[in-house]
Amino acid sequence: MSGPVQHAGMRASNLALVLRAIAEADAITRARLSTVTGLTKSSISGLVTDLVAGGLVEETLAPPSRDRGRPGTMLALHRQGVAGLGLEVNVDYLAALVVDLGGTVRYRHVATRDNRGRPAQEVLAELAGLAEAATAAAAEQRLGLAGACLAVPGAADGTTIVRAPNLEWAVVPVELPLPATAYGLSIENEANLAALGELWFGTATPRDFVHVSGEIGIGAGIVVGGELFRGAHLRAGELGHVILDPDGPPCSCGGRGCLERLAGLDAILQAAGAPSRLELERRCRDGDDRALGAVADAGRLVGVALASVTNLLDPDAVVLGGVFAALAPWLQPAVADALADHAAKPELLVSSLGPDAAVRGAAGAVVRQVIDDPAKFLGWRG
Amino acid sequence: MSGPVQHAGMRASNLALVLRAIAEADAITRARLSTVTGLTKSSISGLVTDLVAGGLVEETLAPPSRDRGRPGTMLALHRQGVAGLGLEVNVDYLAALVVDLGGTVRYRHVATRDNRGRPAQEVLAELAGLAEAATAAAAEQRLGLAGACLAVPGAADGTTIVRAPNLEWAVVPVELPLPATAYGLSIENEANLAALGELWFGTATPRDFVHVSGEIGIGAGIVVGGELFRGAHLRAGELGHVILDPDGPPCSCGGRGCLERLAGLDAILQAAGAPSRLELERRCRDGDDRALGAVADAGRLVGVALASVTNLLDPDAVVLGGVFAALAPWLQPAVADALADHAAKPELLVSSLGPDAAVRGAAGAVVRQVIDDPAKFLGWRG
Repeated sequence: MSGPVQHAGMRASNLALVLRAIAEADAITRARLSTVTGLTKSSISGLVTDLVAGGLVEETLAPPSRDRGRPGTMLALHRQGVAGLGLEVNVDYLAALVVDLGGTVRYRHVATRDNRGRPAQEVLAELAGLAEAATAAAAEQRLGLAGACLAVPGAADGTTIVRAPNLEWAVVPVELPLPATAYGLSIENEANLAALGELWFGTATPRDFVHVSGEIGIGAGIVVGGELFRGAHLRAGELGHVILDPDGPPCSCGGRGCLERLAGLDAILQAAGAPSRLELERRCRDGDDRALGAVADAGRLVGVALASVTNLLDPDAVVLGGVFAALAPWLQPAVADALADHAAKPELLVSSLGPDAAVRGAAGAVVRQVIDDPAKFLGWRG
Repeated sequence: MSGPVQHAGMRASNLALVLRAIAEADAITRARLSTVTGLTKSSISGLVTDLVAGGLVEETLAPPSRDRGRPGTMLALHRQGVAGLGLEVNVDYLAALVVDLGGTVRYRHVATRDNRGRPAQEVLAELAGLAEAATAAAAEQRLGLAGACLAVPGAADGTTIVRAPNLEWAVVPVELPLPATAYGLSIENEANLAALGELWFGTATPRDFVHVSGEIGIGAGIVVGGELFRGAHLRAGELGHVILDPDGPPCSCGGRGCLERLAGLDAILQAAGAPSRLELERRCRDGDDRALGAVADAGRLVGVALASVTNLLDPDAVVLGGVFAALAPWLQPAVADALADHAAKPELLVSSLGPDAAVRGAAGAVVRQVIDDPAKFLGWRG
């Protein structure tokens, strides 16, 4: 949107226009807001009053300067008022995380446990406990939750997980004991949310990149021009099922020789003879040949798959995330070597968020809902 | 663009708005144009006068109907006035093709010859001959060329081919004896143009698809929501360098086991023991086991690569084009089998344009320039 909108949804659009301008500017005067948005000063005044009353924006004083005799009133996002709750259910951990409107993490809890073979309702009951603790922690900090977003290793339709193959979940409706909020609960693929987490909260991420979520499964979030690329049926980014060996071992997807079957965390642990990720990392640090070999072999395969991805999508960078970020000291050189063997040479980055990227992205997605549609939040509170 | 634009480039934008509405409607009244574009009837009147005077639009009479007592004046694209010239230099053929504003092919010439090992200037001199003949044929039909677009198996910067690995061309400036035209000469990757040709002129093509240009090299044009996906550095779609066997034979790209090294036309001919594409097709028709086996093996590899592509990009359909369209009776079943083995199941289509897709797309790209920026054409003529 590049200017004021003149129709029935005008107030809602203009609230979003103003809030986005405030978010992008960090701190801004009413006069500058009028210039940036093209709205009149009296429109700005009314919209800002509503945003301040709703707890989304706060007034601050700019430091006095020589140019202006007295300190001016600036507007900024209200970082102490509203927050987003991110949740994640993954194959070997659960997570809950709260970020405020400014993107600062205000609460984080990760519970590591292999969730395969557990009944879905049991896992979701444990997740409910994490959600309740996070909600309480937000309340203690006087943060009001605007909504919640759940990251899953699969796909969802509304609030039902419709498939999560690595959890062996088919159709699982999700009900969590969350407080009533303006935006409610949404569910999204964890690889997509991890890419958005990296885009919003990562360091020096370009606008066109592929973020690799390396876990038991391997997914990718494809970001094109700063927006998520979802595909025609919202199923893009299944990097784990790029085929590296058409005659290779069968994969849970029905195919053979898929990347995640050959280089996912399970395959690495098996090749390394290590019982857990933490033990694998310990052995790598200790220079254990078998562990280092297993990680390097996986890195080579990840690099080959990323060479194919780069030839197809031509991104600025590929970002190693999830477990692959934790294993980067030993994995990245092999990925880089494999990429160098092939023509396409994107920048190879390591996620600064690592396994937190998806739950950060989930919490950030709630904040993004507030910025994109503050009228819904104000109307709900009002 | 969804409405009139109120700034300095207003006339140019409004000319494009009106011409696009006429192109989309086939035939339309001035009153309806006013409704569709949001422009006043007097604005429409002036803009249409310019478009008619410039030879882009013509007035026709609608057949009389019971509702309206007398036939009304309709506006349509002027199909006898302006045309686009498409040219193609590929590894084993040259082509020239003219389409009018309505997209009808008015001239086509394809010269089959292996261009590898020939000096670039010699090949371009032969292409110049094709371009001159096409220009003369257009003039004979009283079609004025608006511009020319050259399809190349590689990448270009302005009017210089900067790389075409399968021709072993590095930096080759292109100068062709073309008449002066409004839009001049542009150069574009052939796989991208083939996908656009399929989008604009193919039968029943969806809005999200991957078009496979199977030739000596294998390229893909990725169409997302009816627009070409080009990547961050305009190099997306290098399907031929998706890696199927990391330990396979070396490829010209520096990698190993790339799809086009294993399943491009050269690999198929070698496996079939056939001297040419036409001979290969003849042997397939005659039921020659070796030829059929070579084509089926290639089809299986193309299917595996397309399973990976589908897992990453989630298109509605994949379209077999180029030589793969000609070989479809024997290739398509193997492609379909390989796709069926894996989770992602896009619609599998065969291009109705086949090897003509890129040169059709090239000619169509000129027509698209006219529709998108008629002011440039009118200004040039005026």
